[in-house]
Amino acid sequence: MLLGSSVLAYGQTEKLDMATLDKIRQEGQQRSQVMETAFYLTDVNGPRLQGPGFVKAANWSKDKLAAWGLQNARLEAWGDWGKGWTVERCYFAMTAPYYKSIIAVPRAWSGSTNKLQTADILFISDTDTTALENYKGKLKNKIILIDQSYKVTPSFTGDADRFTDEELQKMASETAGPRGQRMQGDSAMRRRLMAMRVGNLFNQKMRKMAKAEGAVGILNSTQNSKDGTLFVSGDYANAALGATPDDLADLSISVEDYLMLCRLMKANVPVKLELDVKTKFFADDIKGYNVLADIPGTDPKLKDEVVMLGAHLDSWHAATGATDNAAGSSVMMEAVRILKAIGVKPRRTIRLALWSGEEQGLHGSKNYVTNHLVNATTNQLTKEGQNVAAYFNVDNGTGKIRGIYLQGNEAAGPIFAQWLKPFNDLGATTVTIQNTGGTDHLSFDRYGIPGFQFIQDPIEYSTRTHHTNMDTYDHLQPDDLKQAAIIVAGFVYNAAMRDQKIPAKQPATAQQATR
Amino acid sequence: MLLGSSVLAYGQTEKLDMATLDKIRQEGQQRSQVMETAFYLTDVNGPRLQGPGFVKAANWSKDKLAAWGLQNARLEAWGDWGKGWTVERCYFAMTAPYYKSIIAVPRAWSGSTNKLQTADILFISDTDTTALENYKGKLKNKIILIDQSYKVTPSFTGDADRFTDEELQKMASETAGPRGQRMQGDSAMRRRLMAMRVGNLFNQKMRKMAKAEGAVGILNSTQNSKDGTLFVSGDYANAALGATPDDLADLSISVEDYLMLCRLMKANVPVKLELDVKTKFFADDIKGYNVLADIPGTDPKLKDEVVMLGAHLDSWHAATGATDNAAGSSVMMEAVRILKAIGVKPRRTIRLALWSGEEQGLHGSKNYVTNHLVNATTNQLTKEGQNVAAYFNVDNGTGKIRGIYLQGNEAAGPIFAQWLKPFNDLGATTVTIQNTGGTDHLSFDRYGIPGFQFIQDPIEYSTRTHHTNMDTYDHLQPDDLKQAAIIVAGFVYNAAMRDQKIPAKQPATAQQATR
Repeated sequence: MLLGSSVLAYGQTEKLDMATLDKIRQEGQQRSQVMETAFYLTDVNGPRLQGPGFVKAANWSKDKLAAWGLQNARLEAWGDWGKGWTVERCYFAMTAPYYKSIIAVPRAWSGSTNKLQTADILFISDTDTTALENYKGKLKNKIILIDQSYKVTPSFTGDADRFTDEELQKMASETAGPRGQRMQGDSAMRRRLMAMRVGNLFNQKMRKMAKAEGAVGILNSTQNSKDGTLFVSGDYANAALGATPDDLADLSISVEDYLMLCRLMKANVPVKLELDVKTKFFADDIKGYNVLADIPGTDPKLKDEVVMLGAHLDSWHAATGATDNAAGSSVMMEAVRILKAIGVKPRRTIRLALWSGEEQGLHGSKNYVTNHLVNATTNQLTKEGQNVAAYFNVDNGTGKIRGIYLQGNEAAGPIFAQWLKPFNDLGATTVTIQNTGGTDHLSFDRYGIPGFQFIQDPIEYSTRTHHTNMDTYDHLQPDDLKQAAIIVAGFVYNAAMRDQKIPAKQPATAQQATR
Repeated sequence: MLLGSSVLAYGQTEKLDMATLDKIRQEGQQRSQVMETAFYLTDVNGPRLQGPGFVKAANWSKDKLAAWGLQNARLEAWGDWGKGWTVERCYFAMTAPYYKSIIAVPRAWSGSTNKLQTADILFISDTDTTALENYKGKLKNKIILIDQSYKVTPSFTGDADRFTDEELQKMASETAGPRGQRMQGDSAMRRRLMAMRVGNLFNQKMRKMAKAEGAVGILNSTQNSKDGTLFVSGDYANAALGATPDDLADLSISVEDYLMLCRLMKANVPVKLELDVKTKFFADDIKGYNVLADIPGTDPKLKDEVVMLGAHLDSWHAATGATDNAAGSSVMMEAVRILKAIGVKPRRTIRLALWSGEEQGLHGSKNYVTNHLVNATTNQLTKEGQNVAAYFNVDNGTGKIRGIYLQGNEAAGPIFAQWLKPFNDLGATTVTIQNTGGTDHLSFDRYGIPGFQFIQDPIEYSTRTHHTNMDTYDHLQPDDLKQAAIIVAGFVYNAAMRDQKIPAKQPATAQQATR
């Protein structure tokens, strides 16, 4: 019945329900709600760092999923996460030698100045911790500025980009590397997190001294910030390590102004700054929550198996997290909306997950996996874990889908190559054995559950939006997001209808399960 | 003596003092002060709109020129210009549905809010003046937001650019167009000024109504603003038409936030804004001033003749006017510094001019010309006007010089082509019959005085810096400015040493002298 006359076979094995895939495409192209969803997650909701912004977005998403007819739409606590935090005011300006308001965003978990403060700069030109002793006793009521040699260079190439045919062909022709290489993304993230946790010794000492002496704040910028675009996050571990409201005001500012202040200090030009930063910490509910919702399976033999699709709903706070990752969340929500709208009856259960705490180390997805899918004692998959047929993730910005990373799972290659064929005309053609890291499919992959992230056109991800104050709705590409939702819906549907689950990687990867 | 053994002849006529041109290059490359000059004009001085910022920069420049040994360095009043104006505070944020500080810059001659004001938006979706009546009585304590359909698009090509060989060859192969075309720049500026003066009827009516009813402010943005870069100027005529401190707070904001506010209003999401704008008007000295300084001529027969070089020192106020036009001012100052440093004895007098009020309609240069060079009754050149051998201008940003616009002056072509030859290796090769408009050489050209502007690589001029909040020191290209100063110094030196003045255009253009 299901595999009737409308089903075409590609290659040796994959049978595709072309009629349904066509309906998915029609629904996704003609009645898309992906931009409306993105509008609510970004413009209406605001930033989604741990705190009221995330909870509001999570509840809105849950209600929307329920309204679309998904079953058991719910917020599920995954454990204690940490204090929530929001910005309630941020104003920064230079008032001497002349007035200039300066683009500024508090770094996550920054403290406050309590009121508008006028302050001189303490300029620290030396970043070795011994020299720091020279500044002892001089920090009270000062704003700290550390000399930096950033260079602002004009962009002679576009901020935005799409993969060329040549680049895609190169990705497609890659071969599986050694294990270590295949886990590169995860290792890189681990190294980064480790570096963050250990912290920069100088930075830690300086901040401790500054807080003890009563400094007003500290300024930061980054090499890649320019033109009013600020890359702003926060120390990953601050939430866990116990940031408090009486911490120093910790401010990212535009690099051009940062460098101007450095130049003025080096030229001994007297500078006055004024600063008003008010942040708020929330300790009433320190739990972390994921949003989950299902389209129940209908095949008695397969309905306990689950095809998962997910994206992280949390964001950094400098903007509204449009491309990171309202984009992925909206695409995933749109994919299940499409499937419900066309009335699919999947054999397996389809489960949407919108994760939290991804930006601080994949917390939501990691804890979902350890709470549900892995036995904490044996590190082996539980029955529920064995029942996950596949996990699909979108978290690389607003760009359309160009293919999929196999994450070293060679057996999945021929399957996905055939699944992509009906979408080749939309620009999605490429299957690569490569890994990609830095997001939630790793939480599944590390335990041997087939977890995948799609290849997406980069657009402005690394130049303008990823963790910046410009990660806003207008930087979303509507046509790209529509395309992505259609392809994800197709993949999820195929995975839910297939006779077998997506094969797991060989050998099993349980040995990777140490954190 | 002067044209001794070190002098080489290029082509048929031009004799070039290669020894001096070499010294110019050595001084300009090895002991350049162009970036130090730019630092003082931008970082140290700040914006240079009419007011204390301009006067401070003018006095600093005058003193610096005198210190370099130029004669008669002076501020010269050219007439009544208008009230000065500066920003003393600017803070803008959305406080509901969540907090978001918003990049904002008051437009020039904006009024104030008097204190921090919390306000609702009055959203005007219709821009015909009839519909405006619908909003009557609803403006008190509101911030006005007019619906706009701007579209933010990612940049798939570079923000920065240099002329290619092909583009330069095309410019070089242009032929002189009809007169009308040759004055295109000036006409375009006149049309723009006219449009500004007449004003948008809707805008005028709306602002009048808003002020009368007690609105808090009005928001603006522009299509080309994005990524934190804001294009901000102000109504050209406001200074003259009598802007007052009790005018509406008139705010340019980031386009992404502008569009977000429009979307929220269209979706009926309640929005609260807070706004604190304080501006100051200066009426103690409404005169306009140019900075002038000379290197006196030494040839008894030619020393009354003057080779002029100039750039406008004034700027818009959203940043420190680095590429528009601290760049040109620094290049021109560096050019005369080089000439003094190597001890030239020019036959003709060399006169540097740093103009004011260029941004509002070339006021400084126009008035210099009418005060000194033209008989107001006859519209003919005075003796002093006839004695101007040439005027050279730099005002197209930070890019290096690639050649020169002849402004339709065909006779100057073979001369400049030969003058460029010693600088061909620096990338300056191109002589084009074309006009370029929008800046101070037009004030000379309109009366038939040979006035020229150099061709410069665009770099980020139209995309990131020209009249933006990002027109800052770090967007200057040091090597380009060094190159430009060397070439300008060479041209000015050649013009000061040449047996004849640069030929004037045929026919004389006095007929263009109607304003």
